[in-house]
Amino acid sequence: MKCLRLSETREFDAKKFKRFLLHDSPYFRILNFNLQAGQIFPVHRHAADGQVSIHVIEGKGFFLGEGDTALPAETGDILVCDINEPHGVSAETDMRILVTIAPPF
Amino acid sequence: MKCLRLSETREFDAKKFKRFLLHDSPYFRILNFNLQAGQIFPVHRHAADGQVSIHVIEGKGFFLGEGDTALPAETGDILVCDINEPHGVSAETDMRILVTIAPPF
Repeated sequence: MKCLRLSETREFDAKKFKRFLLHDSPYFRILNFNLQAGQIFPVHRHAADGQVSIHVIEGKGFFLGEGDTALPAETGDILVCDINEPHGVSAETDMRILVTIAPPF
Repeated sequence: MKCLRLSETREFDAKKFKRFLLHDSPYFRILNFNLQAGQIFPVHRHAADGQVSIHVIEGKGFFLGEGDTALPAETGDILVCDINEPHGVSAETDMRILVTIAPPF
């Protein structure tokens, strides 16, 4: 039993979005990414079984997918997709996301 | 690829905390529970392998564990524990939590 506190990783970087690994186990990996307005988490995919959730915990922007797919993403929105589906995020405002990967690959 | 919106399940019930199943797959199950101030998600455990995260998305209260364990839990705090460890939540204010179980049992 351990407690993670998202208030402790609220850091941004004008050069590149910040990445914090909060938890890793055979069951799931939890990360926090913080994007400044205008920054992009590029669309990518991994050749692995499993799913990922991307939870917007602050700010807004878009969930990116295959081709031109861009779904509005506001605080409280969660994208769920397969790890091997294209996914990414673009930040309209400063934006924090919580990413859970199950199982880690 | 699908988008869950926590703004759509912001309902409370004076009789018992509300439960919403948001996503279920072989990889993880995602639920939203909404507790009114004073309500308790009783301490429990399951005889299964895996881990659970309990993310406070609104309000505050306590993460409950074995015996008298009660850790302060505010918005942005995440408890991570094994599914077979005792865990629960008590709400001091109206409180919303997002629970991720990997893998579902």
